[in-house]
Amino acid sequence: MRSKPAGMAKKAGSPPGSVLHIGREYTQTARIQMVTYDSSHVKVKELSSAADLSSLSFDHAVTWIHIRGLQNTELIAAVCDFFHIHALVQEDIVNSEHRPKIEDYTDYLFMMLNTFWLNEETDLLENEQISFVLGASYLISFQETDRNLFDPMVARINNAQSRIRKEGADYLAYALIDVVVDNYFIILETLGEKIETVEEDLVTQPNADALKKIHVLKREMLFFRKAVWPLREVIGFLSRGEAALLKSSTLLYMRDVYDHTVQIIDTLETYRDMVSGMLDIYLSSISIRMNEIMKLLTVISTIFIPLTFIVGVYGMNFDNMPELRKEWGYFILWGVMLSIALGMLRFFRKRKWL
Amino acid sequence: MRSKPAGMAKKAGSPPGSVLHIGREYTQTARIQMVTYDSSHVKVKELSSAADLSSLSFDHAVTWIHIRGLQNTELIAAVCDFFHIHALVQEDIVNSEHRPKIEDYTDYLFMMLNTFWLNEETDLLENEQISFVLGASYLISFQETDRNLFDPMVARINNAQSRIRKEGADYLAYALIDVVVDNYFIILETLGEKIETVEEDLVTQPNADALKKIHVLKREMLFFRKAVWPLREVIGFLSRGEAALLKSSTLLYMRDVYDHTVQIIDTLETYRDMVSGMLDIYLSSISIRMNEIMKLLTVISTIFIPLTFIVGVYGMNFDNMPELRKEWGYFILWGVMLSIALGMLRFFRKRKWL
Amino acid sequence: MRSKPAGMAKKAGSPPGSVLHIGREYTQTARIQMVTYDSSHVKVKELSSAADLSSLSFDHAVTWIHIRGLQNTELIAAVCDFFHIHALVQEDIVNSEHRPKIEDYTDYLFMMLNTFWLNEETDLLENEQISFVLGASYLISFQETDRNLFDPMVARINNAQSRIRKEGADYLAYALIDVVVDNYFIILETLGEKIETVEEDLVTQPNADALKKIHVLKREMLFFRKAVWPLREVIGFLSRGEAALLKSSTLLYMRDVYDHTVQIIDTLETYRDMVSGMLDIYLSSISIRMNEIMKLLTVISTIFIPLTFIVGVYGMNFDNMPELRKEWGYFILWGVMLSIALGMLRFFRKRKWL
Amino acid sequence: MRSKPAGMAKKAGSPPGSVLHIGREYTQTARIQMVTYDSSHVKVKELSSAADLSSLSFDHAVTWIHIRGLQNTELIAAVCDFFHIHALVQEDIVNSEHRPKIEDYTDYLFMMLNTFWLNEETDLLENEQISFVLGASYLISFQETDRNLFDPMVARINNAQSRIRKEGADYLAYALIDVVVDNYFIILETLGEKIETVEEDLVTQPNADALKKIHVLKREMLFFRKAVWPLREVIGFLSRGEAALLKSSTLLYMRDVYDHTVQIIDTLETYRDMVSGMLDIYLSSISIRMNEIMKLLTVISTIFIPLTFIVGVYGMNFDNMPELRKEWGYFILWGVMLSIALGMLRFFRKRKWL
Amino acid sequence: MRSKPAGMAKKAGSPPGSVLHIGREYTQTARIQMVTYDSSHVKVKELSSAADLSSLSFDHAVTWIHIRGLQNTELIAAVCDFFHIHALVQEDIVNSEHRPKIEDYTDYLFMMLNTFWLNEETDLLENEQISFVLGASYLISFQETDRNLFDPMVARINNAQSRIRKEGADYLAYALIDVVVDNYFIILETLGEKIETVEEDLVTQPNADALKKIHVLKREMLFFRKAVWPLREVIGFLSRGEAALLKSSTLLYMRDVYDHTVQIIDTLETYRDMVSGMLDIYLSSISIRMNEIMKLLTVISTIFIPLTFIVGVYGMNFDNMPELRKEWGYFILWGVMLSIALGMLRFFRKRKWL
Repeated sequence: MRSKPAGMAKKAGSPPGSVLHIGREYTQTARIQMVTYDSSHVKVKELSSAADLSSLSFDHAVTWIHIRGLQNTELIAAVCDFFHIHALVQEDIVNSEHRPKIEDYTDYLFMMLNTFWLNEETDLLENEQISFVLGASYLISFQETDRNLFDPMVARINNAQSRIRKEGADYLAYALIDVVVDNYFIILETLGEKIETVEEDLVTQPNADALKKIHVLKREMLFFRKAVWPLREVIGFLSRGEAALLKSSTLLYMRDVYDHTVQIIDTLETYRDMVSGMLDIYLSSISIRMNEIMKLLTVISTIFIPLTFIVGVYGMNFDNMPELRKEWGYFILWGVMLSIALGMLRFFRKRKWL
Repeated sequence: MRSKPAGMAKKAGSPPGSVLHIGREYTQTARIQMVTYDSSHVKVKELSSAADLSSLSFDHAVTWIHIRGLQNTELIAAVCDFFHIHALVQEDIVNSEHRPKIEDYTDYLFMMLNTFWLNEETDLLENEQISFVLGASYLISFQETDRNLFDPMVARINNAQSRIRKEGADYLAYALIDVVVDNYFIILETLGEKIETVEEDLVTQPNADALKKIHVLKREMLFFRKAVWPLREVIGFLSRGEAALLKSSTLLYMRDVYDHTVQIIDTLETYRDMVSGMLDIYLSSISIRMNEIMKLLTVISTIFIPLTFIVGVYGMNFDNMPELRKEWGYFILWGVMLSIALGMLRFFRKRKWL
Repeated sequence: MRSKPAGMAKKAGSPPGSVLHIGREYTQTARIQMVTYDSSHVKVKELSSAADLSSLSFDHAVTWIHIRGLQNTELIAAVCDFFHIHALVQEDIVNSEHRPKIEDYTDYLFMMLNTFWLNEETDLLENEQISFVLGASYLISFQETDRNLFDPMVARINNAQSRIRKEGADYLAYALIDVVVDNYFIILETLGEKIETVEEDLVTQPNADALKKIHVLKREMLFFRKAVWPLREVIGFLSRGEAALLKSSTLLYMRDVYDHTVQIIDTLETYRDMVSGMLDIYLSSISIRMNEIMKLLTVISTIFIPLTFIVGVYGMNFDNMPELRKEWGYFILWGVMLSIALGMLRFFRKRKWL
Repeated sequence: MRSKPAGMAKKAGSPPGSVLHIGREYTQTARIQMVTYDSSHVKVKELSSAADLSSLSFDHAVTWIHIRGLQNTELIAAVCDFFHIHALVQEDIVNSEHRPKIEDYTDYLFMMLNTFWLNEETDLLENEQISFVLGASYLISFQETDRNLFDPMVARINNAQSRIRKEGADYLAYALIDVVVDNYFIILETLGEKIETVEEDLVTQPNADALKKIHVLKREMLFFRKAVWPLREVIGFLSRGEAALLKSSTLLYMRDVYDHTVQIIDTLETYRDMVSGMLDIYLSSISIRMNEIMKLLTVISTIFIPLTFIVGVYGMNFDNMPELRKEWGYFILWGVMLSIALGMLRFFRKRKWL
Repeated sequence: MRSKPAGMAKKAGSPPGSVLHIGREYTQTARIQMVTYDSSHVKVKELSSAADLSSLSFDHAVTWIHIRGLQNTELIAAVCDFFHIHALVQEDIVNSEHRPKIEDYTDYLFMMLNTFWLNEETDLLENEQISFVLGASYLISFQETDRNLFDPMVARINNAQSRIRKEGADYLAYALIDVVVDNYFIILETLGEKIETVEEDLVTQPNADALKKIHVLKREMLFFRKAVWPLREVIGFLSRGEAALLKSSTLLYMRDVYDHTVQIIDTLETYRDMVSGMLDIYLSSISIRMNEIMKLLTVISTIFIPLTFIVGVYGMNFDNMPELRKEWGYFILWGVMLSIALGMLRFFRKRKWL
């Protein structure tokens, strides 16, 4: 069960501000990519250690440091210390079991988000944590895995014509958040397709398996929803302009991202209602089918049980049973039985059971 | 499934402010209609391209440009650029999968609404997006399809006596919004009729089909509701006078439209409760009918199964069965069986099963 | 279905401020009653047309014009124009499908309320709309039907000792609203009695009919509730003193009416919970009874089906069946069958099925 | 049904401020007890009529007038008039069907509360209304019945050492409210015990009777809850210091009472969840038992119905039935039937039905 | 039932501020541990009585007094009086049935929390109350049991390098609260494991026992949740900086703890949804299985009951039954019966019952 905060339980007892990695072990080594740019120049570099930072010049308008892999806590602590980032923030960055949040430390903004992808093997959603530290002229991003989520962004920065080159670090932060949020639409589409599939299953072969699929789907959505709701607060905070580090021109873009998160939540809630509705309809259809089964059983039993009794009567071996001796007894009995059966049928038709 | 934001997922990755059409392809070509008027003059014109705009004089009090069809994104971008409309707004206009919203860009107001109509073939609700850009003396409206929703408005403007001729662009905006909201009452009436039909079906022929109709109806309402709730916020914003572009005389009218949206939401919530109630009652009535079926089966079985056993006993071929040899044995047995049956009937009547 | 806003749908398309009657046709002609009074004089008059208004002197402290019947829209428009009432208000007055609301037009206050009564024939709740326009020294009330709801008020005004004679038009408005709200207690009592009746029915004869009654009752309450909740807002607005036209001495009385509406809502919510609880208990009791029916069927079947098989065995006609030839075979078989039956009975008693 | 506001319906139509007794008739005569005290003196007196008030001196710091019985409305009106209490307050005092509320008339505070007790005979909760009018140096309390709820308070006042003697009328009000609220814990304990009893019943003998007990319990809690929620608002108002008549030293005590009401509500909500959970579990266990019953019926039927058919075949009287003539036919048939039965049993065991 | 506030009911009637122990009797004797420290010195001492306090010097920066066991109310009152703590606070400390709360007495802050642990024997959650009184330079903590919850904290204080040595009493309060909150993650993990176990049980052996486990689990979570929600308010109050006693540097840490409580609530709500979902799925799967059982019963009955009737017919003993005399009658009948059976089977296969 992914939602079990096992790591947090393990950590209980250690002093606050301890930079211990909590979460899945996705990558063993950390990769540090540094992109510095302004409207006229771009430089992309892979750093081998945090020590490289001090030898670098930060003479460009924007410095973006992107770190993949949270296992190497020492390296992360070193980078953070270089930028004078609070110990509690460092602790949060390496603990990948947090809910999305935003904190304004005046000199820098700290944000945590989640991205999701579909694990093709298990057909379940996986998530990783993305943290951002946004300063006046720098942005540090921390990614749990090695996925190339932000590679298109590097390409965009390399394009001298793109708007991103003319804007500051806050616009870069917006652009990365936009990538993360746009990603959610892909997840929504996946969920939408799963809902359609389960719905078809329910129509064509309504069995316990379809039920289990609904169960898994509901849990996936619970898991996804838990990440999306706090995201709304985070981006709402940004779009309301409460953080001084965001220029007012960027606010407009943040408002756009905020609209997207609201739309995601809206769609997700609609999906929830749809899945609940589906389950209701499914259970109701079971009741209806049960009803029909019972009707058939009752019709058959009600017609044949009395008739079986009658033929049983004339199968008795009493010495003195006058009817048995009558020449037309057998044929009269058939007449009697047929009229009983027909009467019953008419009764059931009147009750609309047939 | 209409609520799947497929387009948004496709768009994930492209830079912000890209004017890409997202949504259904209703019309291939865009039609631009321009209406300029003041209290004394009216001019109605069809423009063939955005270039025509620059050659026009805007000497009347109000200019209304109405564009149908969102496929031709270049034309829309050209019109928007002419009026200096922000790239993010342009992006929203051509993306028809947004929820209703309003944004105040000081110089102009941007609004997105939805209208609905019943597709006669599928018997399902269809929707299209209507966007408005309201400036100090102009209103640009964007419609996804070619429906003649606003044609009566052109006729009203042509009437020199109508109030609209004496008022500014903000009153025109109100009048168009009023057309959109009034349209919702027609949808509500359609939903109301569907509910009535389904309810009658449940009474006359309660089967799995009626259940499916409830399911479809619930989903229609979910879909409709998703559009109506944010509409309330949009019009609430307008009616509270938070937008400087609306004159205070227009606010009174906006408040009236706001009352209508509240009434629509109220009715819709009542419908929801009614449909839920219907489903509950339906399922309960299935339980009750099941109960009656089971009672009948049980009564028949409980009376005849023991009797069938008895006649079976006297159908046995043991050499030594004294009863069979008794002269009145057969008739005595009938007496015994009748009294068992009557006893059972009395028992069931006492338990109110008959 | 009463809650269908059919009228609003019909009106879609007509320009705002059109004074068209929307709603049921209760009365063909309108009756205008005018009561003017101060602490020393009272005059009660029936007006035949709006033109009579101009010939009248408004020299008393308070003028109350009470109009019954909304069909004659011209007359209503004439009266409203005489008092310079906004076109949107006039439109609302004759449209009897609005939810309760209040609007402050500085010079006058506009309120819409609903009253309910039990239609003895259909045993269903009916409602009519009451609108008030309260000016500094006048009150105009509009009533949809011809019911004599406010006749006792005329009598009270005629009584020179009553407090109402010493107070202004705002106190008169309070007094009429109090009449309307007090009326709701009668409806609550009716609902309470219906709940009791249905509950007794459920206990004495729990069948599909009782279920239908619950259904109707739930819908009645839904319908009633839809009117009561906005009423709370309306009277809350008045009691908080937000309207300048109400003197502070009247506010105290309004607060009293507000308490009553809160009490009505409280009781109504309790009723809802009670009805929901009733349905739950009813459905549960059906499940329990079903259980008992099934137990009986199972006990009977489980005992007699094996026995019937056994007697069937000895009814076979094989030439060589040694048991049949045994002298005591028949009696031994009876012993075997009795012990099987007793064993089964003991098994069922142990399982607490008997 | 206790929650039916019958009295309010009867009152509909009478002018506001009418001091009519509405509610149950608990006591015929009213008892007036007057306690005046300061830190050095105490005087306790029974008054025979309101006229006695004028002959009394109010020279002590605090005067507490406690009136039991609301039938004698004239006496209550006289007392209230003596203290210049508003007619609407007087009306509320004698109408014992109000919800708890508080009103600040600047010169005095008016509060209404409810107390509950268990009627031993019916095993149902009964309630009575307690009203307080708190002035600067006096407190008037009105109690519906003759119960000696506040007798221990008189004893405490008589004790010269008790804190109450050093404090003003506001502290006395606090002390009495504390008595009322503490009483609620006793009711909670009663409800808790009832829940335990019902739960045990469900485990030991789950039948329709247990169901009815849950129903009654739920209704009791509904009834109790309806009184507790508004109580929270009342005491919250007092504890926030919004009433000028309460000294700041008393606020601390009020906050303590407020904590108690929050705790009461918390516990009550937990009880509600517990009872709902109980019902769910109960209904589920019925489904499970039904399932087991059906399994048994199906196993028995599925084994014996085919066998009964087979023995029926060989009970037929055709002239030419070769099997019947075979010497070992009967025994071979037994073998066939046993293997069918064993096969069926193995099938059911595999499906985990046995 | 642990949630029954039995103690509070017993207390009803006693005057406010009475320091009576209410709650379970965990320990007979109280242990007082005193830790005083600043950045350079630490002193840890066990006090035998409250009188020892006066003989002590409070010359260090921070004094922490930790009291275990609430039975000895006199000792607690003595300690509290020494620090001039209000009587109502003393009353709350020894009453261990309160909900978490915080109160600001300007000179000191009073907080109540709960900690939980799993009772290994009963497999149920137990809780104890932790109260804190935080002054400018002292912290008094009260613990209900003798558990060594805070022992690691003493070790940390002894470590001269730890941050706690450089900070004031407010940081100590934070550190202790952090211990309490971190503890909740352990409980969450326990609950998560229980949910997993129950879920597996439902899959492998879905019976009434699994149902009971869900019931117990739901109640555990109800009990836990009742403590966690108010905790959020308490810590939210602290983290918002509303208490003057907390330095701004400590606020950052409090905000971190606040994030943890939000995460705990989030996870708990997810668990609740999971357990509800589990129950739904379980009940649905029972319905489905019931359906399958009924299908089998119906198939068997519907095939064999008519056939049994037919063989019954030819078991009758009428003298004149021509079919019985036909040479191939028996074999023809077998053919007829087989084709009936096959027809039925085809019918059921078409209906997807087989």
